[in-house]
Amino acid sequence: MAGNSFGTLFRYTSWGESHGPAIGVVVDGVPSRIALVEADIQQWLDKRRPGQSRYTTQRQEPDQVKILSGTFEGVTTGTPIQLMIDNVDQRSRDYRNIADRFRPGHADYTYWKKYGVRDYRGGGRASARETASRVAAGAVARKILGPGIVIRGALVQIGPHTIERAAWDWDAIEDNPFWCPDRAMASRWAEYLDGVRKAGSSAGAVIELVAEGVPAGLGEPVYDKLDGDLARAMMTINAVKGVEIGAGFGAVVLGGEENGDEMRMQGGKVEFLSNNAGGILGGISTGQDIVVRFAVKPTSSILKPMRTVDSEGNEVEIETHGRHDPCVGIRAVPVGEAMMASVLADHLLRYRAIGGAV
Amino acid sequence: MAGNSFGTLFRYTSWGESHGPAIGVVVDGVPSRIALVEADIQQWLDKRRPGQSRYTTQRQEPDQVKILSGTFEGVTTGTPIQLMIDNVDQRSRDYRNIADRFRPGHADYTYWKKYGVRDYRGGGRASARETASRVAAGAVARKILGPGIVIRGALVQIGPHTIERAAWDWDAIEDNPFWCPDRAMASRWAEYLDGVRKAGSSAGAVIELVAEGVPAGLGEPVYDKLDGDLARAMMTINAVKGVEIGAGFGAVVLGGEENGDEMRMQGGKVEFLSNNAGGILGGISTGQDIVVRFAVKPTSSILKPMRTVDSEGNEVEIETHGRHDPCVGIRAVPVGEAMMASVLADHLLRYRAIGGAV
Amino acid sequence: MAGNSFGTLFRYTSWGESHGPAIGVVVDGVPSRIALVEADIQQWLDKRRPGQSRYTTQRQEPDQVKILSGTFEGVTTGTPIQLMIDNVDQRSRDYRNIADRFRPGHADYTYWKKYGVRDYRGGGRASARETASRVAAGAVARKILGPGIVIRGALVQIGPHTIERAAWDWDAIEDNPFWCPDRAMASRWAEYLDGVRKAGSSAGAVIELVAEGVPAGLGEPVYDKLDGDLARAMMTINAVKGVEIGAGFGAVVLGGEENGDEMRMQGGKVEFLSNNAGGILGGISTGQDIVVRFAVKPTSSILKPMRTVDSEGNEVEIETHGRHDPCVGIRAVPVGEAMMASVLADHLLRYRAIGGAV
Amino acid sequence: MAGNSFGTLFRYTSWGESHGPAIGVVVDGVPSRIALVEADIQQWLDKRRPGQSRYTTQRQEPDQVKILSGTFEGVTTGTPIQLMIDNVDQRSRDYRNIADRFRPGHADYTYWKKYGVRDYRGGGRASARETASRVAAGAVARKILGPGIVIRGALVQIGPHTIERAAWDWDAIEDNPFWCPDRAMASRWAEYLDGVRKAGSSAGAVIELVAEGVPAGLGEPVYDKLDGDLARAMMTINAVKGVEIGAGFGAVVLGGEENGDEMRMQGGKVEFLSNNAGGILGGISTGQDIVVRFAVKPTSSILKPMRTVDSEGNEVEIETHGRHDPCVGIRAVPVGEAMMASVLADHLLRYRAIGGAV
Repeated sequence: MAGNSFGTLFRYTSWGESHGPAIGVVVDGVPSRIALVEADIQQWLDKRRPGQSRYTTQRQEPDQVKILSGTFEGVTTGTPIQLMIDNVDQRSRDYRNIADRFRPGHADYTYWKKYGVRDYRGGGRASARETASRVAAGAVARKILGPGIVIRGALVQIGPHTIERAAWDWDAIEDNPFWCPDRAMASRWAEYLDGVRKAGSSAGAVIELVAEGVPAGLGEPVYDKLDGDLARAMMTINAVKGVEIGAGFGAVVLGGEENGDEMRMQGGKVEFLSNNAGGILGGISTGQDIVVRFAVKPTSSILKPMRTVDSEGNEVEIETHGRHDPCVGIRAVPVGEAMMASVLADHLLRYRAIGGAV
Repeated sequence: MAGNSFGTLFRYTSWGESHGPAIGVVVDGVPSRIALVEADIQQWLDKRRPGQSRYTTQRQEPDQVKILSGTFEGVTTGTPIQLMIDNVDQRSRDYRNIADRFRPGHADYTYWKKYGVRDYRGGGRASARETASRVAAGAVARKILGPGIVIRGALVQIGPHTIERAAWDWDAIEDNPFWCPDRAMASRWAEYLDGVRKAGSSAGAVIELVAEGVPAGLGEPVYDKLDGDLARAMMTINAVKGVEIGAGFGAVVLGGEENGDEMRMQGGKVEFLSNNAGGILGGISTGQDIVVRFAVKPTSSILKPMRTVDSEGNEVEIETHGRHDPCVGIRAVPVGEAMMASVLADHLLRYRAIGGAV
Repeated sequence: MAGNSFGTLFRYTSWGESHGPAIGVVVDGVPSRIALVEADIQQWLDKRRPGQSRYTTQRQEPDQVKILSGTFEGVTTGTPIQLMIDNVDQRSRDYRNIADRFRPGHADYTYWKKYGVRDYRGGGRASARETASRVAAGAVARKILGPGIVIRGALVQIGPHTIERAAWDWDAIEDNPFWCPDRAMASRWAEYLDGVRKAGSSAGAVIELVAEGVPAGLGEPVYDKLDGDLARAMMTINAVKGVEIGAGFGAVVLGGEENGDEMRMQGGKVEFLSNNAGGILGGISTGQDIVVRFAVKPTSSILKPMRTVDSEGNEVEIETHGRHDPCVGIRAVPVGEAMMASVLADHLLRYRAIGGAV
Repeated sequence: MAGNSFGTLFRYTSWGESHGPAIGVVVDGVPSRIALVEADIQQWLDKRRPGQSRYTTQRQEPDQVKILSGTFEGVTTGTPIQLMIDNVDQRSRDYRNIADRFRPGHADYTYWKKYGVRDYRGGGRASARETASRVAAGAVARKILGPGIVIRGALVQIGPHTIERAAWDWDAIEDNPFWCPDRAMASRWAEYLDGVRKAGSSAGAVIELVAEGVPAGLGEPVYDKLDGDLARAMMTINAVKGVEIGAGFGAVVLGGEENGDEMRMQGGKVEFLSNNAGGILGGISTGQDIVVRFAVKPTSSILKPMRTVDSEGNEVEIETHGRHDPCVGIRAVPVGEAMMASVLADHLLRYRAIGGAV
């Protein structure tokens, strides 16, 4: 099956290259009679939009979304929703000098090996520009989930600098350009990234996503587990190299008695005394917060020369000029949130289909 | 879509509970005229079989596989291959005393919330027993991949003890009960796990998988990326809480110039000077070794009492008696290999479909 | 995607050859807590079972179904249901003399061209034996649909002899070996088929299926229309060459004013004054009876010599000996019913997923 | 799974309503390096375009297609191809007076029952306008199939008037407004349809499609049979009520010895002496011409009053004014061809995936 579709019941197909006239996504499987206007989507695209601080790419894209189908008089009709975003700042001339060279860390080489053709104007489908489609589709997913399910993300690490858990403040994330929940760390990151940027280098990041209000029972064992689908969703975001749920890799050093989340009753409801599981057991949501973290590698395009080869087999050097994005991980926050929303919306519909027990 | 199927073109559906008469898997999409007899599958099941050392569960299962369909005179016919394994050592009486209590860290609670019915005889579909089906299907996947693609796994960490990379010796992994490639560490793990076992506790583990010989070009951008599918495949294995590709979470602390794998020509072929990418760029294989790691949490069933609730809402304690498996991660090695083989076989067929460029 | 699975949310995968040890089907996506025991399935297999009259094949198969997974204490658990039927009367020796010859009208030639391997013992997967799996899965589908939806089939034509619509009596179909709703025609068919049988020839048939009690709203436009899925379901049954819905091909000779089903109110509900649509408009059920007809070609294996070639490219003759089935269409009734039930159960779950309007 | 996608490996998703700003289709799974420009698609849209004779709807749509993604310098890149067609002649005012009435024979009632919302401006997704997306996608499918596979369609019946098989002349179909291969019958149809049109009535039609040059081996038994997929493809076209393959319903009156297509050798190749199978046996192509016929009901919108109800439950009458299309079947020819091409392209890719035997 071709790879540009995501989800089963809530399902979207994205299209468009970084240097074509437009990109977009057609979202299918949306129940009817859900209020949906362009502003519902635009707010999340604005969050992802490049060029909002000196720590992200300076490509200028207004990213204005248009709804071309699937709604009537402000509500969904149950038919496919086409969301289109015109490409404005294409600047293909920037890339012409690297047309036949494979940028290390990028998909240039693998696309060329797979498809035998190279769109030398930029990253094409492999460009982070594609993530705007994910954010647009994720906005629709949030409407399906409704206001009771809240999905938020934050950066918890840039380069070697990790936040203090005790300092976590959700209100802080809008106050700094990093979606950092630890105000003190935000300042430190600013300083650190200024150094990285001036050195023409780049830094990686870890993003943490939390979904609150997810009911118990979502996820289909055994191969369509909720955590499996979340892991895949995050790993398909550009530059992501690792995903973990709950305690994640940290669970390895715990003993079974520390790791297992004990249960008590609280006001007639089951309450877990910890959340090492990250809200998922056996691939099914427990009703606790769902917690996912993912690692984003440092930006591959840097202002330093690197050794590579070209499509003719010559050994050459390559160096990025112009727009430079010292930490692509920053803009991954709204993308990760959108993917989480998409997975949850899909599983919510699947849960309804079999008439969940609760 | 119901969740018991894996893959798109190479696609299998597993079935059976830990305490039913049998478990099995029907494998569809296998090309015809591939030599396949039961021994081809049995060898991998033997590797996964429980009760082979004091560090894994003492459940005794011969795990003899039968091919019920899909082959004729020792070769595949292109029709679905049903592989069945009888359950022998069911011992449902062991579990009767915990019939209505939710074991912390297990899927008891979530299955009950999702399905409203409880098979109190054991883990049912959530049992690690299901992984025998994965190993059987993975054996078929290896036959599709052929001898040129070699998939191997090893434990690289148990609890806090991590192997020395420099000491890696693939020949060592068959010489100790841990699939440990570092002989010195194997002894240390034995000592450590004996302590864990005697304390009635358990330990987590990290498994590393390497696939050699994978051609460049496998993987379907943008949502069916090879790394996305591998991440999902691993995360659906019981007790897995984290997955990473190549440098993984470690990439976060690298600068872009360290992380990007530079390229040179070697004997007329492209050669990468490092493999932080883990053999995948833009979701497509590069031709390098594909490297995946995943984290397995400590066994949830331990010989210590833990607080929980029962299906009536009473606060109770629960304690496992009898068979005890101090580190479930050990037996995850052949399971991880099987899932990797399955993902690669599926993408190999998909690659053939579009007539890859190379 | 491999072709042995049917459905999306209610989804089954069948396996097994006519001359292997067993055939079966694994049914996934079944909601939990539905009462299901083997007798629920056996009743429909008994209806399909061969050898019940001189007008169908004399192969003797008890077709005893076993539930190997997915139920506990008589109810479904939400996990995959493996249904297995042992092959008893395999008689592969009957077929040995035709091992390398392609039987006209059969799939021998095309399987050989596609797969390059020939299971010379019989029809393999192309055998009508596979339809037992469909009937078993269809029995599960009926349980999902519940008693309010009634699916029945009848033969309406054998060879040139078509029933009288005015004589339709559902009670008659159990009283003759043809599922014929017109008692007078049943006698005529008996006489006609005796002649066909004695001549060593065969006859085709048309089956009509009616589903009562289907709510309005099932079916997913535009490519997963209910009628599209029904047409495909029927066309995949062995020997079927045509499918029609409602007035079908007969609609071509009607004027628009005759064909369009007018609507009135009756007791506060919408009532259609005719049913040329066969209960489906725009791919969505109307709430009327759903009416499907399909044409089954005459049995290809006859007691007369026919010209063909063998796998070496020799021109030869071929003639079936022994078991002869003068009208395969007869046994297609329970198979058609099962496929209709399967399509409806799948669409019922899909309908629930999006929370249908009514 | 939402219903607006078609195919598995060659897979497209259509979107857009009859009265929205545009319609379109995103085509995924297309191999790279296939020459494709807008003119390749436009030629088939021009064939389908309305308003080309007095026998079809007078809606005026230029149907200019734009390729928004997936090609670079005139060849496909392997990424999704977005094809967009602006809606020009929307005339929503024509429909305002029937906003709350359910047109008999249309999907108004069922969409309202399913989705609970009504786009009163026209047929929305249920409009025949959606078939332009099919034709556009089918044009891409033809490019995958290459020049060796030729797909053509013709009308063989309008109302009660059926062509003479002996008079079939493919060259004739471009010479009359009916795609009629029998020149004499074309004149008779013109006369007949003029009468139908003047009476404000409508007529049904039967279309026959022939695919030449299809290799043996396409089709996946047992549920993804080539004939099953073709049947579904045709049945999802607006107003189609019946589908048949080869001899179709006519096979019912044949004896087995007449129906089975005998085989001889001709120049070292297998040759069939007849084609009652319509080029498909056991769901797999034989290498003969593939022959499909489908029945289109008479246009439901006629210039005569019909009884219906409205969304408030009132009994009312309804009558179409303005644009009138006496035989929708005529424009179904290019649509049927496109669907046939789509099914064949999908199966060709699937065939390549498993490395077909031949």
